[in-house]
Amino acid sequence: MEPSHALRYARQHRARFLTELKEFLKFPSVSSQAERAVDVRKCAEWLARHLKGIGFERVRVIPTRGNPIVYASWARSSSRPTLIIYGHYDVLPGEPLREWHTAPFVPTLKNDNLHARGAADDKGQLFSHIKAIESYLKTNRALPVNVKCIFEGEEEIGSPNLTPFVQRNRRVLGAGALAAVISDTRMLSAEQPAISYAQRGGLRAELEVFGAAQELHSGAFGGAVHNPVLALCDIVASLHDEDGRITIPGFYDDVRSWGEKEREYMARYGPSDEEILRAAKVDLGWGESGYSLYERTTIRPDVGVNGIVGGHTGHGVKGIIPTRALAKISFRLVPNQSPEKIAQLFRDHVAKITPPTVRSTVRTMSPIHPALIDRRHPAVQAARTAYKKAFGVPAVFVRSGGSIPVVHTFQNVLGIPAVLMGFGLPDDHIHGPNEKLHLPTFYKAIETSIWYLTLTSRMGTTVRSQRHKEWSA
Amino acid sequence: MEPSHALRYARQHRARFLTELKEFLKFPSVSSQAERAVDVRKCAEWLARHLKGIGFERVRVIPTRGNPIVYASWARSSSRPTLIIYGHYDVLPGEPLREWHTAPFVPTLKNDNLHARGAADDKGQLFSHIKAIESYLKTNRALPVNVKCIFEGEEEIGSPNLTPFVQRNRRVLGAGALAAVISDTRMLSAEQPAISYAQRGGLRAELEVFGAAQELHSGAFGGAVHNPVLALCDIVASLHDEDGRITIPGFYDDVRSWGEKEREYMARYGPSDEEILRAAKVDLGWGESGYSLYERTTIRPDVGVNGIVGGHTGHGVKGIIPTRALAKISFRLVPNQSPEKIAQLFRDHVAKITPPTVRSTVRTMSPIHPALIDRRHPAVQAARTAYKKAFGVPAVFVRSGGSIPVVHTFQNVLGIPAVLMGFGLPDDHIHGPNEKLHLPTFYKAIETSIWYLTLTSRMGTTVRSQRHKEWSA
Repeated sequence: MEPSHALRYARQHRARFLTELKEFLKFPSVSSQAERAVDVRKCAEWLARHLKGIGFERVRVIPTRGNPIVYASWARSSSRPTLIIYGHYDVLPGEPLREWHTAPFVPTLKNDNLHARGAADDKGQLFSHIKAIESYLKTNRALPVNVKCIFEGEEEIGSPNLTPFVQRNRRVLGAGALAAVISDTRMLSAEQPAISYAQRGGLRAELEVFGAAQELHSGAFGGAVHNPVLALCDIVASLHDEDGRITIPGFYDDVRSWGEKEREYMARYGPSDEEILRAAKVDLGWGESGYSLYERTTIRPDVGVNGIVGGHTGHGVKGIIPTRALAKISFRLVPNQSPEKIAQLFRDHVAKITPPTVRSTVRTMSPIHPALIDRRHPAVQAARTAYKKAFGVPAVFVRSGGSIPVVHTFQNVLGIPAVLMGFGLPDDHIHGPNEKLHLPTFYKAIETSIWYLTLTSRMGTTVRSQRHKEWSA
Repeated sequence: MEPSHALRYARQHRARFLTELKEFLKFPSVSSQAERAVDVRKCAEWLARHLKGIGFERVRVIPTRGNPIVYASWARSSSRPTLIIYGHYDVLPGEPLREWHTAPFVPTLKNDNLHARGAADDKGQLFSHIKAIESYLKTNRALPVNVKCIFEGEEEIGSPNLTPFVQRNRRVLGAGALAAVISDTRMLSAEQPAISYAQRGGLRAELEVFGAAQELHSGAFGGAVHNPVLALCDIVASLHDEDGRITIPGFYDDVRSWGEKEREYMARYGPSDEEILRAAKVDLGWGESGYSLYERTTIRPDVGVNGIVGGHTGHGVKGIIPTRALAKISFRLVPNQSPEKIAQLFRDHVAKITPPTVRSTVRTMSPIHPALIDRRHPAVQAARTAYKKAFGVPAVFVRSGGSIPVVHTFQNVLGIPAVLMGFGLPDDHIHGPNEKLHLPTFYKAIETSIWYLTLTSRMGTTVRSQRHKEWSA
């Protein structure tokens, strides 16, 4: 099947594609806020209707214990391989609202950028595949490969129901599957596409420290009763040593170290310290000595605090010793760390260093295994070529610091590689205020997807039966 | 003037006094919340009407740059000394509301206790003097001494406008003044009254740490960009060493050390470690080694955190590096520390230890000088006797850990001692949820005040002209 008609169609209908994407972005489908559950469901239903409208054979909104999975398939070609296309229609909260220049759920065009929560992460990227598929179906009445779309609504809360879903449906999903395409990562720039071949894992923990059962007057008791905020700060401060290394005993035991060859490859193709600092808009880097910033965010683990709260946080003063203080802690893990083992090490460590004058609790959640993808796999190499067709330059291979829970699942349950065909840009402000999507890149993403559908259709059964093995360098 | 009629009147009208106090407590006169300014004003107006109603000659609601001062005077006896009676009608916020068993601004009777925000701190204590004065005026048509009441609405925010008021009116207020009576401290128990002869000073500081200008994805940047919550925790954690001593250079330079005699007096009359722990409802003490808990809260300074906040603090997870984090810090200072000097030392210290990877700011506010009162002063000794009349035992002299800004002002501007005639109990939960007033103590407080008005009326001009000198042991 030739992509020329599909490509022409995609170019002709850009204005409509943009209008539809805006509709998609208007849903505040925030998975981490219980009060948004209805919006999440409405968004799923809108997405399902849209998929039916463009010509998918089978579309279902599949309930889970949490938010529904939108599933859509087109599988008329028994002689061709099957691509699984994964994306997520849930988003992070818009807060802090006062730091947005436009309302997060009122998609707003500014020059070449569409501003909205989820514009890049991940509605816009997901939508580029939908529009590629539409372009083929409307011009050729068929796709060059079989496609099964899995669009989940819980990625931002650690995909608790996605792995069970994939496991339950492993036979249907795995049949003839070549690879899982995931567009939820970044390129190096608008001119330089990139394919991620490594993802950090993760673990979230809520560390809470309790002092006296009731707020105490800080004059009457200050100096004689332990302040739980001070105790929490002590614990959090003690998580790093002066070299930026994490002090939890055993934390580095399973961290894989990489040889000179891999580190040279990373230095050559990955972002420089300067590029990372520019993307973050900060002047100075921070972290573990002996590693570049790119290495610190990819082959080295991290522990940070997403949020902290305790005592009187409103305006004005209140002379109290608070009763409790909470830190929301986030670990980013690397091969071969196990989130379950790290959870136990962290628990043990906190229990050990909590002074007897306060009490502490640790709740862990959202464990995500780190993942590596073999960049020599033909389905991965095809993505490289597809980028070259759309962007004029082949993609380079980079590691990602983030965590996409499902990568590990596809690899381990279905035995297929995740092809991390990202279209985000470093300055898209995903997870922050003023998230945006670069529209010229969005349009090229649609074309990249059209090319990828085309290129993978030529792959024979030998590739299909070649089970994915995690790459070992 | 004999107090017998007044005492009988006070006993007969307890039920009405209680009803009136409840009315007073219904006003959410929270000085630290701007949205409560109208309630603060209404409370002041209610108080003024009440003072007029019981027979004060002159009552005024005096505007300030902040909340009004309610002033009331009765000064018909030129041959008698004048007592200044100070109290505050502002209260702390009721939050956290979910920890209250009854609504903070719905005064609720439970056995012998009246539960409400401000019940003990300070509306209830202030009200005992009003009812003592009423009892005299209604039975004798006169008071045994001249009285000038100053009831302010900004004590809980550091009395920013009280000292200027006293300074502006030093001649009127100082004329014939014997002492300033302040009932805003605690007794040792319902059976053992106490007079505070020392108050810690204080200083509030807001320490804010800033990282990247926008929230960053903790996967993409975690490990390479400094997390401002981590940096804030480092700074806060570094404020104490392992012996519980404060590490700010120069912090202890002006701390007065006390000889064995004074420490023995404190050990004998002050609360034991066990009593302090019981009042706080905690099992273990904390703080600077080498000092009893009573000493740690009175003759030793303290630094704590009233509140901390940064990043995502709501439900669920949000994988971000926050842009900023804030700690609301509270210093309690002791003679001869100066809040202004401590502010400078803290600023310098934070500037010095803030790493170059983040930016920090320090705002200081509410400076309060520590105060010492000569317990041998006749007006102080008269309070001891007044307690004996009402409670059956004389008051003991104790130090307070808290800070009443105006004590220093009365001593330094008017040259009169503050007589800290407290009626609070250790378990009154002032500044915390479920604040309450012990009613049998409240009724004895009214009688103590009646006796104090009586006893001080006998003091001659020799006492009056004896200017207060800060006690040096």
